[in-house]
Amino acid sequence: MEFLKKINSKAKQDTDSGFGTNASNYGGRFFTKNGNANVKKVGVGFVESISWFHTMLSIPRWKFLFIILLFYFVVNLFFATLYYLIGVEHLNGISAENDLEKFAQAFFFSIQTYTTVGYGHINPTGFYASFVSSIEALIGLLTFAIATGLFFGRFSKPEAFIRFSQNALIAPYENGIALMVRMAPYKNTNLSEAEARITLGLSLEENDKLVNKFYQLDLEMEKINSLTLSWTLVHPITKESPLYGFSKNDFETIDGEIIVFLKVFDDMYSNHVMKRTSFTFKEIIYGAKFNLMYDRNTDDTKTILYLDKLNSYEKVVL
Amino acid sequence: MEFLKKINSKAKQDTDSGFGTNASNYGGRFFTKNGNANVKKVGVGFVESISWFHTMLSIPRWKFLFIILLFYFVVNLFFATLYYLIGVEHLNGISAENDLEKFAQAFFFSIQTYTTVGYGHINPTGFYASFVSSIEALIGLLTFAIATGLFFGRFSKPEAFIRFSQNALIAPYENGIALMVRMAPYKNTNLSEAEARITLGLSLEENDKLVNKFYQLDLEMEKINSLTLSWTLVHPITKESPLYGFSKNDFETIDGEIIVFLKVFDDMYSNHVMKRTSFTFKEIIYGAKFNLMYDRNTDDTKTILYLDKLNSYEKVVL
Amino acid sequence: MEFLKKINSKAKQDTDSGFGTNASNYGGRFFTKNGNANVKKVGVGFVESISWFHTMLSIPRWKFLFIILLFYFVVNLFFATLYYLIGVEHLNGISAENDLEKFAQAFFFSIQTYTTVGYGHINPTGFYASFVSSIEALIGLLTFAIATGLFFGRFSKPEAFIRFSQNALIAPYENGIALMVRMAPYKNTNLSEAEARITLGLSLEENDKLVNKFYQLDLEMEKINSLTLSWTLVHPITKESPLYGFSKNDFETIDGEIIVFLKVFDDMYSNHVMKRTSFTFKEIIYGAKFNLMYDRNTDDTKTILYLDKLNSYEKVVL
Amino acid sequence: MEFLKKINSKAKQDTDSGFGTNASNYGGRFFTKNGNANVKKVGVGFVESISWFHTMLSIPRWKFLFIILLFYFVVNLFFATLYYLIGVEHLNGISAENDLEKFAQAFFFSIQTYTTVGYGHINPTGFYASFVSSIEALIGLLTFAIATGLFFGRFSKPEAFIRFSQNALIAPYENGIALMVRMAPYKNTNLSEAEARITLGLSLEENDKLVNKFYQLDLEMEKINSLTLSWTLVHPITKESPLYGFSKNDFETIDGEIIVFLKVFDDMYSNHVMKRTSFTFKEIIYGAKFNLMYDRNTDDTKTILYLDKLNSYEKVVL
Repeated sequence: MEFLKKINSKAKQDTDSGFGTNASNYGGRFFTKNGNANVKKVGVGFVESISWFHTMLSIPRWKFLFIILLFYFVVNLFFATLYYLIGVEHLNGISAENDLEKFAQAFFFSIQTYTTVGYGHINPTGFYASFVSSIEALIGLLTFAIATGLFFGRFSKPEAFIRFSQNALIAPYENGIALMVRMAPYKNTNLSEAEARITLGLSLEENDKLVNKFYQLDLEMEKINSLTLSWTLVHPITKESPLYGFSKNDFETIDGEIIVFLKVFDDMYSNHVMKRTSFTFKEIIYGAKFNLMYDRNTDDTKTILYLDKLNSYEKVVL
Repeated sequence: MEFLKKINSKAKQDTDSGFGTNASNYGGRFFTKNGNANVKKVGVGFVESISWFHTMLSIPRWKFLFIILLFYFVVNLFFATLYYLIGVEHLNGISAENDLEKFAQAFFFSIQTYTTVGYGHINPTGFYASFVSSIEALIGLLTFAIATGLFFGRFSKPEAFIRFSQNALIAPYENGIALMVRMAPYKNTNLSEAEARITLGLSLEENDKLVNKFYQLDLEMEKINSLTLSWTLVHPITKESPLYGFSKNDFETIDGEIIVFLKVFDDMYSNHVMKRTSFTFKEIIYGAKFNLMYDRNTDDTKTILYLDKLNSYEKVVL
Repeated sequence: MEFLKKINSKAKQDTDSGFGTNASNYGGRFFTKNGNANVKKVGVGFVESISWFHTMLSIPRWKFLFIILLFYFVVNLFFATLYYLIGVEHLNGISAENDLEKFAQAFFFSIQTYTTVGYGHINPTGFYASFVSSIEALIGLLTFAIATGLFFGRFSKPEAFIRFSQNALIAPYENGIALMVRMAPYKNTNLSEAEARITLGLSLEENDKLVNKFYQLDLEMEKINSLTLSWTLVHPITKESPLYGFSKNDFETIDGEIIVFLKVFDDMYSNHVMKRTSFTFKEIIYGAKFNLMYDRNTDDTKTILYLDKLNSYEKVVL
Repeated sequence: MEFLKKINSKAKQDTDSGFGTNASNYGGRFFTKNGNANVKKVGVGFVESISWFHTMLSIPRWKFLFIILLFYFVVNLFFATLYYLIGVEHLNGISAENDLEKFAQAFFFSIQTYTTVGYGHINPTGFYASFVSSIEALIGLLTFAIATGLFFGRFSKPEAFIRFSQNALIAPYENGIALMVRMAPYKNTNLSEAEARITLGLSLEENDKLVNKFYQLDLEMEKINSLTLSWTLVHPITKESPLYGFSKNDFETIDGEIIVFLKVFDDMYSNHVMKRTSFTFKEIIYGAKFNLMYDRNTDDTKTILYLDKLNSYEKVVL
């Protein structure tokens, strides 16, 4: 295969990528854009296969609130049905004229019990209604205990508030060219001790067999003390680089992927946070350089970081 | 002892295993299958010897819920008894015909107080009933505060969602053989920076004295960047290995154990999690190799990981 | 430029400061006194640009309590208005003589619902009032769940309880001079494994272009095992130092900044905490030395640390 | 001073102990037995000098519960007084015959509001009583939010469940002697990656000036993989040791201290935990060795660790 020869024989192969090198398991990309492994797990039950708590922490806010509301409605519908079946005559203070009203009042009594509001203008008499309301109040308190945990979990979940540029660039660098990826923090957080790593993943045929190959791309700077402005990761495409000799056309036709790993200490959490992203070769712009995205403000008292310019680049001829 | 000579004199002994080398303290295995040290501690009181909070976090869900339910019932039984002893005539709104009904209504009043539902159709009059209900409401709120902590603790407890193969294999490897253990992540989590370590523990007689000996087993790869598919730990049984020269029969007759330590960074917790397991020599299959457990899906967009194949192997002649 | 020549050509330049070296982005200081990067981010929406949870954890206590109180008031005003619009005749037990009283009673009913007190002397009848109160009770419980998380977050937020001296000093040291910064822990915490780092930032013209330059300042001691008393960071101004040859006048006229990074393990949180501060050249006292700030107590049983002497120094001639 | 010559000139001095070497700040011991620095901080206000949250996490359980109970009582006394001053006639449902009864009922109404039980048989009428109860219910919920945080904080606070022997021993070791300290885990936790460090602190006169000197004591083994049984730290007193040549009498008369630092990863918290302790020279037994504290159980299935033998030693002649 012609293209295989392109890969630099001097390039350091990366054997510890976590994606095996044998067998044809490449499925279009190794990591999705937001950094999850592009892997589907089968052979375990659904319940076992997900961590529901962390799923509740990750889903969008509106879904989270919708689930809470739905749960609230369904649980109370269930208990309202129970009270209705026991008989609303065991709920003191109900004055309903028809079945629908009876059910509605049972439903509202259920809510008053579940939330422990307990106005008391409706109240249970007899063993069964009292017993069911006892269980409901317990369940109410426990689910609010769980909700407290979920809210706190959502808020306090360590997360790297960092954005990557949409594209990776092949840009001029010193006397040659380099692969560049840019990132910037976008929230009011203090990030320090940032460490980055770039892996190149290729899916190719070797002796008529599909193989995955991974290479570590050396960075000009792998660590910075504080990540306060934008940071451009620069992999110089020297003779040692596995990308050495790749043409614009190669990037357009080969199935390859640039995987970026970032680890940074966030003061807010006093913890290290991780972030991953990936760029397929189709997301690499050959011949472009990033525009500067910061500047001093007019009265010279602060540096301004323009986050909307994160992916701003201009074309250059290499 | 014949077998002692088998152990490679070049093998690196591991002096820092945490299990002493002197004295006859070997009790069948050093670690249980799920990674706890096989040690019983005596000489401290029961209360001191366990961390009850963490026990509540580790017990199965049904036990946890049962304990909550039992506690709820017992506490309210206690307070119901108090109200009953004070006299239900100090509880306004009770209309009971016999002692059982009186007690039942005191019990339900207790629950309405404990959960702070407080319908109020039953309410305390007089100092004693009011005082007891004041204490009960406080205890109610505090126990729900504790329950909130327990639920959150259970959900947010860092845990390595990784499974190990049931067996370790002695498999062909390059031109010789190797000890192999396989693991795979089984939940929707992102694991990175995985580090593994294997220790061999042997309990044997040396100069008529029982001794424990520990050896570090060198791995072909000790770290991987991301643990997204299965990972097979490979200890090549070379001339430097303490297992060099062990026959199938040796594995069947010797009291030995393979202890596996894993440390991995889990994005979900932004924290390192640890996992341990152990394989006794009886759990080692001599002459077998793991079957591949992943594949690409039909439309080539994802890698599929078959978790039910984690322990799938086929016999081979070594 | 005359002053540029002053900078020691042997000095180690620090390329990984997180503030780029190109372009004129210097805005008076790189870090504020309390360690935040002096950067303004534009180009993202307000909501995206802040982490509101962590803002709530960082604001002063009185602001936090004021926000809670305001929120409590506004939410109940909103629901009171709803009940008022539905009609207070759907709230049983209201006995008001005029509109203001009606509204006030609707307001207090709202509070009794929101807090789940639910005395019940006012209670909802009819579908609309019951429905609104059902939603309000849910919102009440959820906001208190959030409040619980906020309180816990505020209390448990890892923070380095360390103070720095107001000034950095140029003090006599051995046979020469040194830059000194002092710090001390001020709470009842156990700090260990402290690590410090000092970076010098300069904003200067080079070939008619404004440039930022950063230098690592070597410390006589970079780590200490436990931070129990005061700790004076000492950067000896030797021939290798970028500050070598700087006169008192230089410190007064040049735009420079000393950035101090501290990382320490706090037992209380079982976590590393970070602290930063910065000293502009104007905050450096040329020719002064720190007075000792600890002593043994009268009965020789404890060491006394005088925190009010943290910035206490006396002038010396260099 | 005669004794000064005793200190090995080859011994590595430890300059980074966190206790300065200059000045007479030695106050009997550097660290207390339970590992806190023996330092008193003055010059900051009381409120600033303590972290009240963490104090609440560290105090004994009975004190913690007492404080909660006291707070509950005092707050309700305060609000009861307010209601009493407003006039109990604004509390519906009170039927008191004298002032004490009125106050008692106001007190119980306060509690029913504070805990949000809100039976409602007593309920507020008029603006002032309603307003005060609105504030009280808010405060009630917020304090229970805080209590939830405190309980969770107490339970989940990372802590090293490790005990040290009461005494350090000077014991025979190989062909010479060694300083030995023993420790053992005492709860159902999995500890791994234990690291220990011993520092020797001496307070002595040098040229008629009191000086503190610190030395690092080299350990035969500084790290172990898992801390499952007891661990004896061994510092061989070789010619390089600062303790070389110390006689029994020296240990009895010199003001010295052995400071032990331990860092270990606890699975339960997925976190590193720290533990410190110190032994004054008076707590060192010259000429003794530890008895073994573990054994296999009768049916050879487990190792038994006898925690009551942690400090068990027998005298030997050196």
